Amino acid sequence: MIVETQSVRFDSISLDSGATLAPVDVAYQTYGRLNAPKSNAILILHAFSGDAHAAGIYEGKPGWWDNMIGPGKGFDTEKYFVICSNVLGGCRGTTGPASLNPATGCPYAMSFPVITIGDMVRLQKMLVDHLGIEKLLSVCGGSMGGMQALEWAVRYPDSVASSIPIAATARHSAQQIAFNEVGRQAIMSDPDWNEGNYYDGKPPARGLSVARMIGHITYMSDDSMREKFGRRLRGKDEFGYDFSVDFEVESYLRYRGSQFVNRFDANSYLYITKAMDYFDLVNGFASPAEAFRNVTARFLILSFTSDWLYPSYQSQEIVRALRSRNLDVAYCELPSNYGHDAFLVDVGEQTELIRGFLARTFRERPQG
Amino acid sequence: MIVETQSVRFDSISLDSGATLAPVDVAYQTYGRLNAPKSNAILILHAFSGDAHAAGIYEGKPGWWDNMIGPGKGFDTEKYFVICSNVLGGCRGTTGPASLNPATGCPYAMSFPVITIGDMVRLQKMLVDHLGIEKLLSVCGGSMGGMQALEWAVRYPDSVASSIPIAATARHSAQQIAFNEVGRQAIMSDPDWNEGNYYDGKPPARGLSVARMIGHITYMSDDSMREKFGRRLRGKDEFGYDFSVDFEVESYLRYRGSQFVNRFDANSYLYITKAMDYFDLVNGFASPAEAFRNVTARFLILSFTSDWLYPSYQSQEIVRALRSRNLDVAYCELPSNYGHDAFLVDVGEQTELIRGFLARTFRERPQG
Repeated sequence: MIVETQSVRFDSISLDSGATLAPVDVAYQTYGRLNAPKSNAILILHAFSGDAHAAGIYEGKPGWWDNMIGPGKGFDTEKYFVICSNVLGGCRGTTGPASLNPATGCPYAMSFPVITIGDMVRLQKMLVDHLGIEKLLSVCGGSMGGMQALEWAVRYPDSVASSIPIAATARHSAQQIAFNEVGRQAIMSDPDWNEGNYYDGKPPARGLSVARMIGHITYMSDDSMREKFGRRLRGKDEFGYDFSVDFEVESYLRYRGSQFVNRFDANSYLYITKAMDYFDLVNGFASPAEAFRNVTARFLILSFTSDWLYPSYQSQEIVRALRSRNLDVAYCELPSNYGHDAFLVDVGEQTELIRGFLARTFRERPQG
Repeated sequence: MIVETQSVRFDSISLDSGATLAPVDVAYQTYGRLNAPKSNAILILHAFSGDAHAAGIYEGKPGWWDNMIGPGKGFDTEKYFVICSNVLGGCRGTTGPASLNPATGCPYAMSFPVITIGDMVRLQKMLVDHLGIEKLLSVCGGSMGGMQALEWAVRYPDSVASSIPIAATARHSAQQIAFNEVGRQAIMSDPDWNEGNYYDGKPPARGLSVARMIGHITYMSDDSMREKFGRRLRGKDEFGYDFSVDFEVESYLRYRGSQFVNRFDANSYLYITKAMDYFDLVNGFASPAEAFRNVTARFLILSFTSDWLYPSYQSQEIVRALRSRNLDVAYCELPSNYGHDAFLVDVGEQTELIRGFLARTFRERPQG
């Protein structure tokens, strides 16, 4: 399935910070066909470093969730119309810090306004409205995508029939903030970052690479790193007794770090991690349950046993809050050794659960 | 208790890499008095960023394990003679990369030979011999100190009556190597690192600070970070919508990172983490039990429930191997929320266990 990225421009968007961004572009892809009553649309929400290319082949590469989206897959494109857009603040087609500021003709860089998960979702709502869809069959994503799936259900209760947050949380914890902060400091410590003004020069490749290496450790589990790398040496039989690469795991992290620099903007790293850290649906409410008081969607919530970055207890907090509002919530903690990456790679059981949940939600919806 | 740091110089030391280092200095402190039969000596082994100043007041500051070592404490200096030395490769008095290379008159920097935990222990053995002690009552340390406590029992079985490895492992895992590697990359990515040649200029403060921030996250637990910081903001009531400090946890990490630069040498960071990553007692043996075939010491092994950096399963691997050699092994997994830091701060139960273990070991020793 060959796919295209499309783009739509809106005049402006108002942000949670009070700032306004004008204009704003959204890059998105769609898979499958919207039915006549427009009742089969599903919005897929990508995680931190994802983009609009969730499925099919684009520029020769499969999408980041191609194992979940397509004919006969968990999100069956023969039944559903699936949409995925790059988040606000991103660097893959949607307006972000690397975009040109029309007021100056230069990239926004650090003059880009700080954004929130709420702002990302507001822009997605504008896209969904633009596509003429009044109510989404479902919103679904893992990690930061799961935060957006929750935010959708809270902010636009009349516009979502169901929500599927995977490996997510209702609020970023101190440890989650801490890992993001170290990544940001790694970038901002790189002299090439230059207060964010590197677009006409060298990007802060070393800092961004270190930040990404930290990320990769948190996405895997102790077990999956043992299985994948153990203490295997890289291209040698004995320790090198120097500071070149000794272990496979070192080689892997260095490679993943250096590759990331080719496809991701360091300033987007700063802005998107900040949005995650600000995420707290409970803030200002007496309890998590109170935060969900307007929610009407039904939920499927998934977490993974070995995910220590977004541990199951965070999903369970959401489940308890929704259940105490007497909402329709299914929750499964899936066994996996893959850590936080499980939602991307360990998709067998996830596929079955999502397929069944979507079928029931679709069947029970008023069909236009 | 005011204490002094002493130093002894040895002509040379042969290293596991095949290299020789000549001369080599060892900085150490002692607490309490060596008895006539020299049967009450305990060697304390410090963790990654520790030094010889384990107890008492030195330069106005308490030692890093002052809550464990002193009159009436877990290591009771009214009964025992306690020694602690700075490790080989360190930057607190013992020869390391910042030391002058007599051949050039300049700091070794990256011409310092790569060292191992075995090399650290070999130098400690030279110190213990120098002090005229034939057999230590005990060797004890947490984290990297625990690795040394294990190495002592394996390498010098006739010289240790007992060993107390705390929050340790018999071999560094892929995840443990990965965290160290990211710290090293953060340092080596800092242009001020300058291939290790910064001793007459600016040290790589930014890289070292980022490395230390990563370390601090791994030393704490998700729970202890929640209790200590939660999502509390630092000096503000609302998000700043900028990239200055928003959260308490960010402020803490930045502070600890910047403070570390004042007391630790970046090249020592590289060498000592490398020594930890190389540590693998099982390497070359058919099984962990086989690796312990010459061990005669009795063991007290401790781990902590919330320590995810050196998880209990690693201690339990050691316990099983020693038990299968029919050795005298006591093991306790202590409940604590403090993560890996627990061995430094949550010392109540640890004190009782160590006190009893030492008393029995001392009582049952032939008293010269």
